[in-house]
Amino acid sequence: MFISKSFIPILKNNPTEAKIKSHQLMLRVGMIKQSSAGIYSWLPLGFKVMKKIERVVREEQDRIGVQEILMPTIQSSEIWKESGRYKDYGEELLRIKDRQGREILYGPTNEELITDIFRSSIKSYKTLPQLLYHIQWKFRDELRPRFGIMRCREFYMKDAYSFDINDEEAFFSYNKFFLSYLKTFKRLELSAIPMAADTGPIGGNLSHEFIILAETGESKIYTDKRIFDLKYDDEVLEKNSLKKLREKYEKFYAVTDEKFDQKEFDKNVSKENRLSTKGIEVGHIFYFGDKYSKPMNAAVDHQGKKEYVKMGSYGIGVSRLVGAIIEAKYNDKEEIMKWPISVSPYDIAIIPLINKNDSTNLDKAVSICKALNEKNLDVIIDDTEENFSSKLKKFNLIGIPYQILLGKKSEGDLLEFKEIGKESQNLSVKQIIDLVTKIKNKI
Amino acid sequence: MFISKSFIPILKNNPTEAKIKSHQLMLRVGMIKQSSAGIYSWLPLGFKVMKKIERVVREEQDRIGVQEILMPTIQSSEIWKESGRYKDYGEELLRIKDRQGREILYGPTNEELITDIFRSSIKSYKTLPQLLYHIQWKFRDELRPRFGIMRCREFYMKDAYSFDINDEEAFFSYNKFFLSYLKTFKRLELSAIPMAADTGPIGGNLSHEFIILAETGESKIYTDKRIFDLKYDDEVLEKNSLKKLREKYEKFYAVTDEKFDQKEFDKNVSKENRLSTKGIEVGHIFYFGDKYSKPMNAAVDHQGKKEYVKMGSYGIGVSRLVGAIIEAKYNDKEEIMKWPISVSPYDIAIIPLINKNDSTNLDKAVSICKALNEKNLDVIIDDTEENFSSKLKKFNLIGIPYQILLGKKSEGDLLEFKEIGKESQNLSVKQIIDLVTKIKNKI
Repeated sequence: MFISKSFIPILKNNPTEAKIKSHQLMLRVGMIKQSSAGIYSWLPLGFKVMKKIERVVREEQDRIGVQEILMPTIQSSEIWKESGRYKDYGEELLRIKDRQGREILYGPTNEELITDIFRSSIKSYKTLPQLLYHIQWKFRDELRPRFGIMRCREFYMKDAYSFDINDEEAFFSYNKFFLSYLKTFKRLELSAIPMAADTGPIGGNLSHEFIILAETGESKIYTDKRIFDLKYDDEVLEKNSLKKLREKYEKFYAVTDEKFDQKEFDKNVSKENRLSTKGIEVGHIFYFGDKYSKPMNAAVDHQGKKEYVKMGSYGIGVSRLVGAIIEAKYNDKEEIMKWPISVSPYDIAIIPLINKNDSTNLDKAVSICKALNEKNLDVIIDDTEENFSSKLKKFNLIGIPYQILLGKKSEGDLLEFKEIGKESQNLSVKQIIDLVTKIKNKI
Repeated sequence: MFISKSFIPILKNNPTEAKIKSHQLMLRVGMIKQSSAGIYSWLPLGFKVMKKIERVVREEQDRIGVQEILMPTIQSSEIWKESGRYKDYGEELLRIKDRQGREILYGPTNEELITDIFRSSIKSYKTLPQLLYHIQWKFRDELRPRFGIMRCREFYMKDAYSFDINDEEAFFSYNKFFLSYLKTFKRLELSAIPMAADTGPIGGNLSHEFIILAETGESKIYTDKRIFDLKYDDEVLEKNSLKKLREKYEKFYAVTDEKFDQKEFDKNVSKENRLSTKGIEVGHIFYFGDKYSKPMNAAVDHQGKKEYVKMGSYGIGVSRLVGAIIEAKYNDKEEIMKWPISVSPYDIAIIPLINKNDSTNLDKAVSICKALNEKNLDVIIDDTEENFSSKLKKFNLIGIPYQILLGKKSEGDLLEFKEIGKESQNLSVKQIIDLVTKIKNKI
C-alpha cells in the first residue's frame, strides 16, 4: 500500500482542541474525525487498529468458551421497564420515539436484552452455564463528551453475560473472565490491574475494574504497588485454580475511588507500598445474582424447583482501548509512538528517500514490499517526495513498530532496519521477514 | 463444538408468524430472535453466517482497492440540512433529540457524512480517485416491518462511496463496483442480475439494482432471459474492459418496476425471452455526480479551478443476504437447506447415533472432530441422545453442507460421508479432509 493512495489525512501540528495525548495523536495522524459532539468516524489507520484490538478481544473470549452473538443497538423500552432501569438510568440513556410513537432507546448496555433472549430459549438447568458475548456499538448521552474517543457518546464495546445455577458456579464464570481479561490486556501490552469497584447502574455487590495507570486517566485508584508484580501465566480454566488466582490479587489492597477507605488503606498497605494515582478503566466485570433474572422471570427448572439464574456481566471498551494504548505507549515530548505489533495498523513501514526523476529507491521499496507481502506481512510505503527527515518524523508519529529505511546509504542486499526506540541494524530481507514473523507468532 | 453446549434454540415446528421461508427457517433453527418490531438479535448460528458473508463482501471490496473506514450510526442533522435531505427523506428517517435538545438521527445511509469527511481531508485532484467503504448498522423506520430480516428496521449494510474528478473517471469507479458485485454474489452462489433501476431518495440518474430471482421477492422485474447466461470471469480492472462488461449486460433489457416500459420491453425482447417475475434486491449502485458535493461544497483544486467532485454510492445488504441465500437455497417442501460452503455456519456436521450407556460413537465423533479441527475445518457434533432420524431432520434444516453419519453401520476406518442433496459415500478421514479443504480453497 502506498501512503499517497491511502486515506490518511495527516495534520502538520497538534490540534489545539485536543487536551490529552491520545486525542492529539489520533487527530494528528488522521485515525479519527469528529462528526459531532462525542461522535467519531474511524478513518483507515484508526479503523485498522480498532479491528485488531477487536480480534484479540474476540480470540480471548472464544478461548474461555464464550459464544458470540449480536444484539441490536436499538432496544424496546419494555424490557427496561421490567427491570426497573427505564426510570432509574438517568439522562445518559438516549431515549427515542419511533414514527409510531413507541418508546425505544439506544442501548448503553445489554443486561435486559440478553436476559430476554435467555428466558425465551433456555428452560433446563442442564444447559447451564451459558456464556454469551457480543461486540456492538453503544451510546451514552454524556453531558460533556471529552478526550476524543476516551469519553465519547457512541463507543464500541465487548459485553459478555453469564448465566449459572448458583453462586458457586457463577463465581467460577466470574473468575474465568477475571483470568481472560488479564490475558487480553497482556496481549495488548497493557498492564491492567483489577481493582475492587463500585457497581453503579449495573448493580450487584461484586465488581472489578481493570485499570491501566495513566496521569490523564479519570479513575482515581488506591493500591498496593506489589500487585503489579503478580504473575498468572500458569493458571488454567479450573474452578480451584481460578479461585486462587483471584485471591492472589485480592490479597493486595486495590480499589477505585468509590471503594476507598483511608483507614483500611493505612492498615493494610505499608507506607512504602502505597500508591494513589490515576488510571484509565479498560474493562469492568460485575456479579449481580438475580438482579435482572428475578424481575424479568428468567428461571430454569432445577430438580422440580424454579430457580432464578445467577448472572454476571463483563465489559471491555474496544474503541477506548485504542486511546488507552496510545496513553500508555506514546511519548509526546519526543513525538514518538510505538504500537504493539498485535494491533499496529501495519507490520512494517518502508521509508525510501525519493529524489525527483530518480525512482531507484522507490522501485527497491516496491520489490521489498512484494517479498514481505508474500510472507503475510502488511506493509506501507511512503512514496511521497517529502524530505527524508519529515518522513521519519511522520512515521514516528504513526507508530508502526518496524521501519525499513532506504536512505542515501542504501546499497547492496543489506537494508537499514529499525525498531522504533532501538538502534538500527543492517539486515537482509529474509532476516527481516524471520525476525518480524517470529515476533508476530509469539503474540 | 457440541450442539448440547451451543446456544442453538431449535423449534419443533415452523413459527406461525413467519410468512416467507427464510423467516421461517431462521426462527426455526434459532438463527435470530426478534427483540422488537423489525429489530432482531443474531444468535450464534445466524451470527456465524452473517460474519462469513461480511468477510466475502469485505474481501471483494479490498480487491478493487476500496479502503475500509467506519462511520458512526448516529449523525448530526446539520449535514442533512446542508444536502436538503433532512426535509425530504420522510418518516423512515429515525429522528432523535439528545439530552441537550440537539437534532440527531440514526443514519439510514451515509452520503452526507462521507462527503463531510472527504471535504475536510482532500484538497487536491491528485489524490483522486478516492474509494471508501464501511460496514455498519443502519436504521430505517419502516411503517410495516415484515419478512424477518428481509425488511426490518435495523440492518447491516456495506456502503461504499467514490469520489472522482470527472464523469469519465466516475464511470470507471462505477464499473469497478459493477464487476465487484457480480463477483461477490457469485462467491455466495447467487445469480444476481444487474437491472436498471430508479434512484429514489439517493438521487442521480444512473443506477443498477442487483436482483436475485425469488417468488417471495418484493421487487418486480422485467428482463430478457438471456442475461442469465452472461459470463464475466475474464474481466479485469481496466477502464475499457469494464466499460465493455457493463455494455454486455446493458444490451439486454433488464429493469425494475419503476423503470418498466411495456413498449420498450415488447420492442427489445422477443416473446420467448421475456421474463417478468419477482426478485430480491441484494445490492444497489448509484451514480449521482455533484448532487451532494455541490451543496456541501466538496471540491478539489484542479489546474487552478475549483471542481466539485463526482460521486457514486454502492450498497450491499449484508444482513439481508442471509435471508436471500435461504430464499435461493432452501427447499421448504422437503425441509432441506444447504448453505454455500463459503458462508455455512460450520464446514461439517458429525451426527452419531448415541445409545444410552454406549459412548462408542460419541468417542469416535470426538476423535474425528479433533482430526478435522487440526486441518482448520469447523465442526459441530450432535452429542444429544435424540433418535437418529430426528437428528438428520434437524441437520437438514441447519444446512451444513457436509455430514459424517455414524450410525449402526459405522465400522472400521471408512465413514459414511454425505453432501446434502447427494448420495452418501464411504470415505476415510483423510479423504474427507482433502475433499472439503479442496472445495473451501476454491471459493
